[in-house]
Amino acid sequence: MRQSGYFLRTIKEAPKDEVSLNAQLLIRGGFIDKLMAGTYSLLPLGLRVYRRIENIIREEMDAIGGNELFLPSMHPKENWEKTGRWGSFDALIYVGLDEEKNLALGPTHEEIISPLARRIISSYKDLPQYVYQFQNKFRKEKRAKSGLMRMREFIMKDLYSFHHNQEELDAYYEAVRKAYERIFERCGIGGETYLTYASGGAFSRYSHEFQTLTEAGEDMIYICDKCRVAINREIISDLEYKCPECGSSELREDKAVETGNIFKLGTRFSEPFELNFQDKDGEKKSVIMGCYGIGLQRLMGVIAEIKNDQRGIIWPLEVSPFRVHLVSLGVKNEEVSRKTDDVYADLIKAGVEVLYDDRVDATVGEKFADSDLIGIPYRVVVSDKTLKENKAEVKRRGSEQAELVSWHELTNMIISL
Amino acid sequence: MRQSGYFLRTIKEAPKDEVSLNAQLLIRGGFIDKLMAGTYSLLPLGLRVYRRIENIIREEMDAIGGNELFLPSMHPKENWEKTGRWGSFDALIYVGLDEEKNLALGPTHEEIISPLARRIISSYKDLPQYVYQFQNKFRKEKRAKSGLMRMREFIMKDLYSFHHNQEELDAYYEAVRKAYERIFERCGIGGETYLTYASGGAFSRYSHEFQTLTEAGEDMIYICDKCRVAINREIISDLEYKCPECGSSELREDKAVETGNIFKLGTRFSEPFELNFQDKDGEKKSVIMGCYGIGLQRLMGVIAEIKNDQRGIIWPLEVSPFRVHLVSLGVKNEEVSRKTDDVYADLIKAGVEVLYDDRVDATVGEKFADSDLIGIPYRVVVSDKTLKENKAEVKRRGSEQAELVSWHELTNMIISL
Repeated sequence: MRQSGYFLRTIKEAPKDEVSLNAQLLIRGGFIDKLMAGTYSLLPLGLRVYRRIENIIREEMDAIGGNELFLPSMHPKENWEKTGRWGSFDALIYVGLDEEKNLALGPTHEEIISPLARRIISSYKDLPQYVYQFQNKFRKEKRAKSGLMRMREFIMKDLYSFHHNQEELDAYYEAVRKAYERIFERCGIGGETYLTYASGGAFSRYSHEFQTLTEAGEDMIYICDKCRVAINREIISDLEYKCPECGSSELREDKAVETGNIFKLGTRFSEPFELNFQDKDGEKKSVIMGCYGIGLQRLMGVIAEIKNDQRGIIWPLEVSPFRVHLVSLGVKNEEVSRKTDDVYADLIKAGVEVLYDDRVDATVGEKFADSDLIGIPYRVVVSDKTLKENKAEVKRRGSEQAELVSWHELTNMIISL
Repeated sequence: MRQSGYFLRTIKEAPKDEVSLNAQLLIRGGFIDKLMAGTYSLLPLGLRVYRRIENIIREEMDAIGGNELFLPSMHPKENWEKTGRWGSFDALIYVGLDEEKNLALGPTHEEIISPLARRIISSYKDLPQYVYQFQNKFRKEKRAKSGLMRMREFIMKDLYSFHHNQEELDAYYEAVRKAYERIFERCGIGGETYLTYASGGAFSRYSHEFQTLTEAGEDMIYICDKCRVAINREIISDLEYKCPECGSSELREDKAVETGNIFKLGTRFSEPFELNFQDKDGEKKSVIMGCYGIGLQRLMGVIAEIKNDQRGIIWPLEVSPFRVHLVSLGVKNEEVSRKTDDVYADLIKAGVEVLYDDRVDATVGEKFADSDLIGIPYRVVVSDKTLKENKAEVKRRGSEQAELVSWHELTNMIISL
């Protein structure tokens, strides 16, 4: 993608009303735009990061048997009344087509998927089922000052599973836990992310969250470094300040943000919607459910929040909007310009995704500053100086060392990195 | 995809409250589910069709320089007040986080993209720009009885273009027109779809719609078969019942539905938002805009509405959820079952997308009826009978003729079709 003509402009200073580091960096880098508190547009550069994350999650959901679907955002009052959450679910945004507010904007989709599953599930032969979606959620957030980490509308991956019995749910829950670990690992925040015991609701003693360490987090967790698990402060009294796995009380306190949750619903939703199945022996039973969420913009925000330095973002490779930021210095020198065009064409031909800073009127300082701010992993510079040596300069974002690489080695080197 | 275990169940009778043919077929075939009037879920099978259409549109938008982004659904009152459409845009759904309704759910995004474009565009060097999105739109539709053809929430592709001057807009408008023709052609409804002159709004005498012929359409158009264009009845008096291209008055009347529109906005939105640029000579000018929409579920609905027979849908190849419906008859015969598994593995290995009806407890009649209802282009049957001849039976949906094809030719034949 040529930077000239791209719908991208970096800015030196983030808007004054933006207090969150992730939003400041993402706004300055041209990834997002703030429409109002808790509401951001994904600009082309930001949508590329979003899509990387979406694809990672989709691959991992498909790998555990998930079938993707897409449910509506406007929900009928009856569905939420059936579960007793109409009027009591804090974050619900009510809406009406007439004067009467008899719809809600979906903050989650148990009220929709449970009755829908009745269409598919009636016999033990129809179980288990796993369905998920990437879908806009709406939440009346009171505190919306954490940039992408707390939004009023955001895309969530929500997976719902339907089972014969508790043992089957337990096994699938475990498979989802592992899929989530792979997702956070691939997004580059595996090391900072802990499986965390949290309050469980009606159907199990604990639920599990994934908490990622950051000073900007609103949760406090207690980490057992030996087991690599943590406890959310909200349940610390229950557990008497002990690691629930090894029993150790050597726990380390830290601030974190919830980046995913997995939850055993049991029959909480199948009962009100009479989502039943006939078992092998003809007995009618309630379907056992689980639900598993990841907020995508939040995940993107957390990555930006913790992967950066004073110059800008440092994207982990698998979620970076491009693999290479190709920077042409001295584009008024026709030879430099022509050579950089050749490098660009070679990389594209090899299937490498490249953002090409071909701007004529940006200074060397501006180009370097923008490249650091945007944070693409590999910067390749072509200039008068490198041209004289018949080489390009390759530098990893975040590293101080640059390397001169000859033209004929460049593409293969970039692919192998 | 193995049909056993897939989140799919066809039904014999569509819900009694569903009067629209497209929704009846799509509900019966397991593509969609109706939540309430004008509101449908895309089930896994339906989402596959949706994604095919989305990818066709994305490819064609990228081919004319479009950059994809993603804008919010909740819009601030101020933005809509600035253009004078708050309180006057019929289909607007108002919503509030508090008691006050000071937000609207976006039915279109001129009010968001125009101020956002100010961030990118300030000089003539920043133009032209083309951005588009696939995004949920919300509309207070009074009549929502046409299935996917008139929904209260639906995903729209909306493209916005920003130009130096009218000539540049005119040229791009023409490029979009051609892209739209390719989209409808690839979706299999090119023959039924006409570029149609409609009322133009403030900035040009006419706008253009794409209208697709169907008895279920709510519009009446007058077609000039020679020029392959049409006129919407709404402007028939203006044009004095003449083809606007050749002047002929030999026009054919037919019912149609709008499947796309392209619109010259001029400065209608750039003026209120002061979206200006500095020209080469230093003069400040308003940016000239265009907008171009396609509703994706409607397009899917129109295809189902016109591509069917009494047995079910007949998907055009490029939008079909799968390329092949592999049907195993007599799966209780182990040899049949094993052979169909082999065929399935071969096709998957060759990159062919296959829905595999491996159900044990469905009858031959049920399997054939489901296959016709779902409407995948190629049906491949393996049975006791075909096995005896060391062949599979291949039949094109909608054709009466089946062909016996030997195992070793099958995969290549399917790929070449």
